[in-house]
Parts: sequence; structure tokens; C-alpha cells
Amino acid sequence: MSNRFVVIMAGGRGERFWPLSRLSRPKHLLPIVGDSPMLTQTVDRLAGLVPAQNILVITNREQVAAVTEAVPSLPRENVIAEPVGRDTAAAVGLAAVLVKQRDPEAVFAMLPADHVIHDRAGFQRILERAFLLAERRDVLVTIGIQPTEPATGYGYLQRGEILENIGDRPAYAVRRFVEKPDLATAETYLASGDFLWNAGMFVWRVGVIEAALRRHTPDLAKGLRGMENDLAAGRPLDDVLEAAYAGLQKISIDYAVMEKADNVATVESAFDWDDVGSWPASARHFPADDRGNVVRGDAVMENAGNNIVIGQKGKLIAALGVEDLIIVQTGDATLVCRRDQAQNIKSLVKRLEGQSEWKHLL
Amino acid sequence: MSNRFVVIMAGGRGERFWPLSRLSRPKHLLPIVGDSPMLTQTVDRLAGLVPAQNILVITNREQVAAVTEAVPSLPRENVIAEPVGRDTAAAVGLAAVLVKQRDPEAVFAMLPADHVIHDRAGFQRILERAFLLAERRDVLVTIGIQPTEPATGYGYLQRGEILENIGDRPAYAVRRFVEKPDLATAETYLASGDFLWNAGMFVWRVGVIEAALRRHTPDLAKGLRGMENDLAAGRPLDDVLEAAYAGLQKISIDYAVMEKADNVATVESAFDWDDVGSWPASARHFPADDRGNVVRGDAVMENAGNNIVIGQKGKLIAALGVEDLIIVQTGDATLVCRRDQAQNIKSLVKRLEGQSEWKHLL
Repeated sequence: MSNRFVVIMAGGRGERFWPLSRLSRPKHLLPIVGDSPMLTQTVDRLAGLVPAQNILVITNREQVAAVTEAVPSLPRENVIAEPVGRDTAAAVGLAAVLVKQRDPEAVFAMLPADHVIHDRAGFQRILERAFLLAERRDVLVTIGIQPTEPATGYGYLQRGEILENIGDRPAYAVRRFVEKPDLATAETYLASGDFLWNAGMFVWRVGVIEAALRRHTPDLAKGLRGMENDLAAGRPLDDVLEAAYAGLQKISIDYAVMEKADNVATVESAFDWDDVGSWPASARHFPADDRGNVVRGDAVMENAGNNIVIGQKGKLIAALGVEDLIIVQTGDATLVCRRDQAQNIKSLVKRLEGQSEWKHLL
Repeated sequence: MSNRFVVIMAGGRGERFWPLSRLSRPKHLLPIVGDSPMLTQTVDRLAGLVPAQNILVITNREQVAAVTEAVPSLPRENVIAEPVGRDTAAAVGLAAVLVKQRDPEAVFAMLPADHVIHDRAGFQRILERAFLLAERRDVLVTIGIQPTEPATGYGYLQRGEILENIGDRPAYAVRRFVEKPDLATAETYLASGDFLWNAGMFVWRVGVIEAALRRHTPDLAKGLRGMENDLAAGRPLDDVLEAAYAGLQKISIDYAVMEKADNVATVESAFDWDDVGSWPASARHFPADDRGNVVRGDAVMENAGNNIVIGQKGKLIAALGVEDLIIVQTGDATLVCRRDQAQNIKSLVKRLEGQSEWKHLL
């Protein structure tokens, strides 16, 4: 059996959980849900399935020290820092290069660093099935998440014919990847029963993803090949990345490959999943008081309901008569946001980027 | 002409402006409106009318150091600390004792420490008229504030017959003092044209207020007489207060004297006046942005309107999509309160009093 690897993508700018998250400390480095950073939980979730030396993390230079600290169980050299962000296709390509160095026949999973999955056993069973499928067939395997609502914030994939049963459940061909739909379209997807959410979790053999990159993004593949040759010639990884990475095509793996490839397959999730993309999403994972307030840190709530309050130890937040707010207090910045405007936190952070006096808060 | 004195009452618990105000730093020690503490502004407003050595401040032990610092122009011994609060009748009685020591024939004004009056010249003209009236007649003079709305938060006084003209305007007898009315009653008061707000600003001769206290609160008067004798015997003021003050009857000057006396007079205000009893009241004194937000300190407002935001220098408050909030951030506590619930901040502070872990925030 080939070696199995997992490459965790731990980039992200930490905008949606500002001011708790920052550019240098985005969501995957914070215990947004649970008691340890989301990245740490992601690594822990693989225990027993993939050995630590086969788990790599791709992050960026700003975060590399904190990321290394968050994954003490991994070999230090398994934390890779991109010199600049080049979107997910380049990260997948880099992952393929790095895994190929270790084992050209390997199969590897790409996983996001910051999703919430409580059911570790269920997750491992599905990832095991995805590994098996990728080992048996020349396919790009996506773990498809069973949708629970007509979400407009995710891309979808449509199941096609059954390829084969793995264990007691079928793996499917994927008919197509589709981008984030509008609500009406999402409702038809949900009703049809054959659409799944694309959670950005992929499994493939090195050779299969390499071939897909060569076919669908030849420029990117060429850049990756150059890096591979430099590494084979003995140049240090950081030097190779510094010289070549910024020149790679910047495109997402969905656009570059998944929407075009005709050899995409899926195994369906049978575990809880949440990408917790916002403060309201994170709040679903915490108990609320009898007025619906979710409170972390020190706070006093009076005649207040349905608020999310994230405070600090020893610094009081007092909420009086307020409803449906997000209140987040840190040492140097406090956010007060209407709950239904959480999606605008990102643009607020971008506005701060333009104000030199507040750049240090990003 | 007799000597004129002003005694400023600077007590207060600082509840309504929590968390900026604290028990040890209530409203009169803060620049709630303007650039200096309200008490400092109150003293400055008397410049030219009453000499500094004739201005006394009555405060409490917790605040005495800060109060002394806030009134550097006054002799140190003119700042008096009550060992315990005994409400305003005792403070008036203490003021009478202290002024009498300096000049038994003196006339003195009692003024609150924390009101906003921008029109200094207008205020001085009215206070001058009140002094003149108190010097000429055996009356308890109240400065009556011309009401501008049917306020239910103030007591009222009803004008009676004209006593005499002082300068170009009449002074009136007061028919009666009335407690805070309900809205319907307040509306009839406003419509009648002969009701004024009781702002707690009084002027009287030492002998006249002494006689009123003797007549209407004989127990309190007896206690005050004992203190007077002890002082005359050479005992230090602090010792006398320590021994006797806690034993004085605890009652307001309105209940004890003003509502009962038949020799109350009034001169009407002809200056702006605001007791700024809440965050919303204070916000009226600051310019608002084009969405109605009043912001002090560092803040970024996005799609936010009609908020009052009180921040700190160098610590950002970001308000996103919120309306009608009061947001006040200090080093150790942050308040987020619906604007129309500002009157409940006081009860919130009382609740914190019952929670030992937050007592240090009071």
C-alpha cells in the first residue's frame, strides 16, 4: 500500500473573526470553537489514521512561528511557509511537489485547517474511504458534505453515477462542480438530493493531481516542475519558494481543476461539519443562556438577548438592554456589530487597512 | 454689604456614567461635557463673582484627594470631606456652620458640582440677583430653571406673587415645591407658565437657613448646634465630623425644608442649564456626525447611526451596523447599552455591587 499523507492548508487572513483574529493570528490559530486552536484540533483529528511525519502544514511567513507552535506533534520541517499567497491551486501544486519528494506513489489529502468536526471517528471513516478510492482509481476525490440547508455560502458538487461501493457505501462520480448559488438555486439543489457541499477537502494520488494540473493549468504545472527540479538539484526549499513561488499562477483549485476535470469523484460525509465562517456560526457550538446569549469571557448580561459576547478574563463587558449583537473585546480593539451584519466585518477590516493609524490592529 | 460665599456639593456615586465614572471618580470629577472636570468648570464659572477663599466644596472621604486636585484655585482647607453621606439637608447645615464660622452675617449659595451651564455671564447675573434678594429679605431663595419640556425627572416649584423687582426682572414668592411629576402633570405645569424646575441651587443668609432648619428639622438643627459648639471650643473639624456627622438626620433639603417653608422665593434662570444626568443627556453637548453618532475617543463607525461612543485614545471601538447604542470603553470594563435604557445603568451598577468579583469596578 502506498504512503498516505495529509497536507493542511493554514492560510487565511483572519478578517471575519476580527478583532480576536488578526493577519498574524487568523481563525485556525484561535480556539474559535473548542479549547485549542482550530489547526491543532485538525491535526489531532488525524491521530491514528496518518502518522505525524506524514502530516504537512502549508502556511505563510507571518504565521509560521505560531503555526509551528500550534502543532508541536509534527516535525518542524513539515510546516511550510509560502513567501506569498498564490491561492489554493498553487498550494495544491506545492503539496504535490512536497509529498512527491517523500513518496512519488503517495496518496494525499488536502484539508482546510479551520473547520469544526466533532465526530472524529466518523471523519476518519470517510477519509479512509476517500484514501481507498484515490488509491484504487485515477480520480480526484472530493469529500462531499451532505447539505442541511440551502446555503448560498458554499460551492456545490452534483453526484453522478455510482463508481463502486467502498465498505458499505457507494462512491460517486461527480457530474459537475458549481459555484455558490443564489437561494432559489440552492433550494432546488437541496430538494434534488444529489448535490453536496464542496468543503475543500480533497484526496488524490500525486500522479493524478499532477496530471490534472498539467492538463488544466499548464502554466502553473510548468512553474511547479521548475521548483521540483530545483529541489532535486539540492537547493533548499525556502530558497526555491522565494525564487519561484510568487511567479506561480494565482487561481483557486476549484476554478483551475475541479470545475474542468472529468475524473472527479466523491465520497459523502457522514460526520458533522461546520466551516464556522463567522461569529454567529461559531456561536452555534456554545451553550446559550436562557435569553439566547452566548458568552465567553467575563460579562454581565441584563435584559439582553441573543447576543454573542466574547470578552477577556478580568475585563468586564456589561450588556444592558441589547439584542442581536456581536460584542468582541480584545486588549486594543472592541467590535460592536449587529448580528445580521457579521458578513461585513471583512469589509470593515479592509477599511481599517486603508487607515494607517489602525493598521497595527490587523 | 455682607460677605458672599458659595458652597458646592460634590458628592454623588457616579452610577449613571459607569463605567467611565466610578464611586471614587463620579461625574463631577470627569469632563463629561467640556475639557475639564464638571466641578472645575463649576468653580471657574464663579470667577469674578465670589473670591476663591469664599468658595467651599463639600465632598466625601473617597473623593477628597481628587476633588482637591480638581480645584487648585481654592484654599486646601475649603475642601471638606463628609465622613459619611447624610443627604443634602445635613450638607446644607454643615455649610451653614462652616460659613458662619467665617462670617455669621454671610449670605451663601449652595450649588451642585456637576451641572452644565455654558452661559457664564448669564449665570453670574442671576446668581447676583439671588444674592441681592437673600441679602434684602428673610427668604430661602431658589434659582428656578425655566422649563423647556415636560420633564418628569425634576422637581418643580410654583411661582407666587412678585416680591419685588431686582434689576429689570421680578423675584417671586414660591407657592409650593412639588416632587417629580408624572408626564400629564408635567405637561400642565409647562402649559401653566408659572412652574419652574428645581435645580438644587439655593441662596440664603446663614441666619435664615439656620432658622428654617431649627423650625422644620429640629433634630438635625440640634445636631448641627452641637457640632458648632465643638468647633467653637477649638476641636478640629475632621474630629467633630467624625464624632457627630453620622448621627445627623438623613434627609434631603427639599423634603426637610423647601417643601415646608413659607418663606421660599425664586429668581428665574436666564441661562442654559443641563444637569446631564445620563449618557444621552451628555451627548447633546457634542457635535454628531451626519448619521447622528456622537464619538469621543478612537472609533470607526460603519453603517451605524445615533450611537454614543466613548472610547479611549489608542484603543479602537468599531461599530458596525448598530443603531441607538451607548458604547463606553475603559481599561477594565466596557458597557454596551441600548440608548433608551440608560436609566437602568444605575441598577446595573447596583447589581455589580452584589457580585464580589466586580466590586473593584465601582
